[in-house]
Amino acid sequence: MSVEWQPVRQSRTHELVLESIEQRVFAGELKAGDRLPPERELAPVLGVSRSALREALRVLETIGVLVAQAGRGPDAGARIVRNPDDALGRLLRLHFALGSYRLEDVLEARVVLERSSFAAAAEHASAEDLDEAEALLVRMQEPSVGVAEFNDLDTRFHVQIARSSGNQLTSTLTSAVRESVRPLILRALEAAEDWPATADGLNVEHAELLRLVRAGQGAEAADLAEKHIRGFHGTLVDEKDEGGEAAG
Amino acid sequence: MSVEWQPVRQSRTHELVLESIEQRVFAGELKAGDRLPPERELAPVLGVSRSALREALRVLETIGVLVAQAGRGPDAGARIVRNPDDALGRLLRLHFALGSYRLEDVLEARVVLERSSFAAAAEHASAEDLDEAEALLVRMQEPSVGVAEFNDLDTRFHVQIARSSGNQLTSTLTSAVRESVRPLILRALEAAEDWPATADGLNVEHAELLRLVRAGQGAEAADLAEKHIRGFHGTLVDEKDEGGEAAG
Repeated sequence: MSVEWQPVRQSRTHELVLESIEQRVFAGELKAGDRLPPERELAPVLGVSRSALREALRVLETIGVLVAQAGRGPDAGARIVRNPDDALGRLLRLHFALGSYRLEDVLEARVVLERSSFAAAAEHASAEDLDEAEALLVRMQEPSVGVAEFNDLDTRFHVQIARSSGNQLTSTLTSAVRESVRPLILRALEAAEDWPATADGLNVEHAELLRLVRAGQGAEAADLAEKHIRGFHGTLVDEKDEGGEAAG
Repeated sequence: MSVEWQPVRQSRTHELVLESIEQRVFAGELKAGDRLPPERELAPVLGVSRSALREALRVLETIGVLVAQAGRGPDAGARIVRNPDDALGRLLRLHFALGSYRLEDVLEARVVLERSSFAAAAEHASAEDLDEAEALLVRMQEPSVGVAEFNDLDTRFHVQIARSSGNQLTSTLTSAVRESVRPLILRALEAAEDWPATADGLNVEHAELLRLVRAGQGAEAADLAEKHIRGFHGTLVDEKDEGGEAAG
């Protein structure tokens, strides 16, 4: 019996460039704030075309580790940064839309991450952080606030609490997971039969959450956060599931 | 006083292409399994150069929503997939290396995610899932196993439990967060003064964790998982912190 030939796995050039830059980051040779050489210098050093180099740089920009020097011309050299939040949010939002995750999965992930955020915020948040959170709640209580703005402020309140917990990673994850269902939450708010009553209910819970965090009552804040998330999130319907099509 | 001119924010072409593809995903017009038109057809339809289109496609490949049709030539058209795990792992690993997250942040995130994974696995895991987890533990108990292989198997055990929890999102996040500290854990294992004793201790805890999951004792499994993670992870030292340099 002849052994079948298998195709050789070809690494593509941009992937090799990506790995080479990653290796320098892992080795600590490239740090946040450092600048890469301009494309016209870096491409020949790496032995690749400028288009392959640029493909790798675009990828690094999108995942939030590189910023092109806008307005400085193509030869300024990009700068290493650490800006994971948008990238992670985009990634999870796309994958949620593609059905990689079910709505229940997102609900459970929010519950564990936000329980942790609220508990840690009660321990670590500064007065300034909580004043900022309170300012968001005040704006949500204005009678003139529209659904879309309410949803924005709501997201920002949860993210602000996560940030004030002092844990950058759970903050990033909380924010990204909340982002992944933002369109769904917006549609649910828009569909609310009695919008003023829905808004009032959420406002009362947010105010109580903030009070518990300020009082340092982490365990109570975590429990209320879980109830708050399950209460509203539990009313959401994943349209991908409606047609009887499996989303997982 | 003259008002200063601000630079106009220029959206770059690849970013516009990216957003156009994302919009189709959000609208449900592009689903997993669908194929994009070949580059030579898609570029003129979008009104962009092939290189700008290719930059956007590379980004989508890297974040795990697109696969180029390897071996089918440049005109085969890429396929939409949902493969978030590698992308998310890469993203968090890079950001951890850049100091976006402190080691304590990663520890706390692991604790909340894995508590949830172990509790859910005790409820939802199939016998086959747990047999696979057990096969990994058996290999870790072989006296000949090296440190690097042990670390691989250890990672795979934790990821396997997360997968068997039935929650794709916490599974993805668990796996990515574990990946972000893999090099650090490997170095800690390599530095263990008494490697056989270290391995034995971890093996005993893993076996007990699996027993609790099989017995459906979710709460106990979650508590032991927390102890297990804090016990070993707590001995890790983030080298970025050692030089007195703030990592946050």
